[in-house]
Amino acid sequence: MKTNHIIEAQQFSREWLEKELFPLADEMEKVARSKGSNELSGKRMVSFFYEPSTRTRLSFHMAMDFLGGRVVFSTENAREFSSAAKGENIEDTIRILSGYRPDVIVLRSDKEGMAKTATEYSKVPIINAGDGSGQHPTQALLDLYTIKKEVGKIAGISIAMMGDLVNGRTVRSLSYLAGKFSGIKIYYISPETAKIKDDIKDYLRRHGIWFEETNDIRKVAGLVDVIYQTRTQKERGTSVAYAKDDFCIVNKEVLDLMKKDAIVMHPLPRNDEISKEVDKDPRAAYFRQAENGLYIRMALLKMILAG
Amino acid sequence: MKTNHIIEAQQFSREWLEKELFPLADEMEKVARSKGSNELSGKRMVSFFYEPSTRTRLSFHMAMDFLGGRVVFSTENAREFSSAAKGENIEDTIRILSGYRPDVIVLRSDKEGMAKTATEYSKVPIINAGDGSGQHPTQALLDLYTIKKEVGKIAGISIAMMGDLVNGRTVRSLSYLAGKFSGIKIYYISPETAKIKDDIKDYLRRHGIWFEETNDIRKVAGLVDVIYQTRTQKERGTSVAYAKDDFCIVNKEVLDLMKKDAIVMHPLPRNDEISKEVDKDPRAAYFRQAENGLYIRMALLKMILAG
Amino acid sequence: MKTNHIIEAQQFSREWLEKELFPLADEMEKVARSKGSNELSGKRMVSFFYEPSTRTRLSFHMAMDFLGGRVVFSTENAREFSSAAKGENIEDTIRILSGYRPDVIVLRSDKEGMAKTATEYSKVPIINAGDGSGQHPTQALLDLYTIKKEVGKIAGISIAMMGDLVNGRTVRSLSYLAGKFSGIKIYYISPETAKIKDDIKDYLRRHGIWFEETNDIRKVAGLVDVIYQTRTQKERGTSVAYAKDDFCIVNKEVLDLMKKDAIVMHPLPRNDEISKEVDKDPRAAYFRQAENGLYIRMALLKMILAG
Repeated sequence: MKTNHIIEAQQFSREWLEKELFPLADEMEKVARSKGSNELSGKRMVSFFYEPSTRTRLSFHMAMDFLGGRVVFSTENAREFSSAAKGENIEDTIRILSGYRPDVIVLRSDKEGMAKTATEYSKVPIINAGDGSGQHPTQALLDLYTIKKEVGKIAGISIAMMGDLVNGRTVRSLSYLAGKFSGIKIYYISPETAKIKDDIKDYLRRHGIWFEETNDIRKVAGLVDVIYQTRTQKERGTSVAYAKDDFCIVNKEVLDLMKKDAIVMHPLPRNDEISKEVDKDPRAAYFRQAENGLYIRMALLKMILAG
Repeated sequence: MKTNHIIEAQQFSREWLEKELFPLADEMEKVARSKGSNELSGKRMVSFFYEPSTRTRLSFHMAMDFLGGRVVFSTENAREFSSAAKGENIEDTIRILSGYRPDVIVLRSDKEGMAKTATEYSKVPIINAGDGSGQHPTQALLDLYTIKKEVGKIAGISIAMMGDLVNGRTVRSLSYLAGKFSGIKIYYISPETAKIKDDIKDYLRRHGIWFEETNDIRKVAGLVDVIYQTRTQKERGTSVAYAKDDFCIVNKEVLDLMKKDAIVMHPLPRNDEISKEVDKDPRAAYFRQAENGLYIRMALLKMILAG
Repeated sequence: MKTNHIIEAQQFSREWLEKELFPLADEMEKVARSKGSNELSGKRMVSFFYEPSTRTRLSFHMAMDFLGGRVVFSTENAREFSSAAKGENIEDTIRILSGYRPDVIVLRSDKEGMAKTATEYSKVPIINAGDGSGQHPTQALLDLYTIKKEVGKIAGISIAMMGDLVNGRTVRSLSYLAGKFSGIKIYYISPETAKIKDDIKDYLRRHGIWFEETNDIRKVAGLVDVIYQTRTQKERGTSVAYAKDDFCIVNKEVLDLMKKDAIVMHPLPRNDEISKEVDKDPRAAYFRQAENGLYIRMALLKMILAG
């Protein structure tokens, strides 16, 4: 499989994930834990973020640097500051960016579909670092990689995805990717006002993936291998209303219900949807999950840019 | 000619442009299309922008990197974020910046004349990357270079400069530079409220440059080698009022009137003053023009910083 | 003395300052005045600023680069732009930052004590680049280094610290450091509304440091070796009210009262608390002081990161 643009979770095959990406990410961890390498020496990245996303931007920069490449230019809030604020459309922006001859553009946008549009006008590979309420494929890949690493397998597992499922990009991308693996069971845990959208449900039905919806994590906490908690997307102008009998947080009570070898994940940053008391439990995998983002992004950059 | 600070279009002689800068820019294109060079290895750039200008900043960063130099520090909105916001004057800022010993400072300011003031306090070369409604000399140089490359010559050509001629920095700088070449005819196309200022007209008269003003590009589209369209400078708090019989856009109708080997230029970003239908016409030179900015900036950096 | 985190002025011993830091800073000046070195080659810095501080950020970047290290990621206004704006606490932020495996994190925060908290969650050294109205230890070190370099000694000198002594971080840190040296006399010059806080006075009394408070620099200008002027911290939401008989500026009148070999310092940026007429006097040491920041930061980075 030729990796060029990284746009959406659906573009990757199960085989590619398991045989190519994940083993390469394992290798990348070794590179990062040593001094780094020079494999991307002379390669130039532009990181172009229409909206701020500190940790995603940081992990791409570190990934590039650990492989010997350089981030030549970065902008963290182009929506407000760049020519976008002067009314420029993405087509022109990308034509010009790619005309300055970087080797790869990491693009974070605030509008769904923008990354895909960008690929039509770019001379160089585009990596989608999140596009509005659309997709965030490198997050989905690192999520899946974390499950593989922590649970030991992906096929056949049960996973609870919780929180604001309407606006959460990560849950959407992860659901698409999960659909590539057999025997997965998904529980969607959310208040009535933030249920997963129909397009995802249709996709799951088409691919024969079992799923169920509820509003109380305690009902399923003992059944799952992974609780994937998400944050209410306050910055997208949404506010999710919780009803009296909704229970959508992870705390000591939930930990006590969970299997001994299950894990808690979260794309971070979190607010109070995971209590601090959870942090010390070995099943709290979210900081290891964030770190895996470095290795997955290194692997992707190496695939796209090396040799 | 010793190039040290790059402050305004007037500082360059026709001979230097044709014999030194443009040939070096041709060479720089080859360097950028290959892997880059190490000619500026160990040289350090600070890019200090009082107001955002994504593409200018990006092209300077890429230019530095293609020559093996490093951009050690960059700020994109110092007017709001830096010590400028704490009330510091440009004199102190530049004294301190240059005291940190970079090899060159690329300065974008929001006040006319600031770049020139900066040179009085700097120990290192200053490159003016635009100062308010003053000048934007590297843009003027890349514009002229584009004309040379696309039309084949500069002396003797006819050029229509269109749009908001009151606030447009690029048109001012380009008019000054054009004055260095013989036999140039300039048509200024604008609504009554946005006509070119008297200081430029005086300059042209003193140098014996022919010019004419009108409000309808269609009247002169068939006569010119270059249509140089500009954008209404919304971000400078101006709004240009167009009257009923003003015609200051480039569309299919204008293309049909143009000579077969004429070109359309624009400093970009554009809004709707050039229709998208123009993009596919080979005479639409604006994206190539943007790319030329990389080569011109590489040439300037090499002149200033190399051995 | 093992230098790992750089958090507060109190952590340094007089011996370490005089025997290790200052001589190394002298050496670093030679490195910066030549081409730089490769001692930190392969080392990676993240500069994470919750609030903008252009000159501090710039001098850390230049310091890293002069030693051959790289600034892989920088954010200048994380309070507004980063996940902090999404409600993330410093603990999580630092856990994730350090999980991306930089070699050092330079942290500027807007809350007192944040840098210290950060050290509890970081796997890598933290350098406090200022935390709210708390400390700014690298500024204090460069201040003290400047006194040593300009006056020739620290023990036994008289120093006037002037301006907004309530909110000024630099004065607090410098007072703590001065307490390490014997025979120092401190005059605090401020309006009634901006006097030095009791915790500092208690500290000085405990360490037997002589100090006196007044509201008119002219009364003591002839007695001191250093006038350390500061700026009213407008950006911290404070405004200092001056009474009729307060005299807290440095101008020609004050210069005329000063000793021939005394100096004027200021952490910069300044507003009008030092008149421009002072700039040309050789006793105006504030621009040299800023430059010393480069050498002190190089020395600290070398201590923390080199082999």
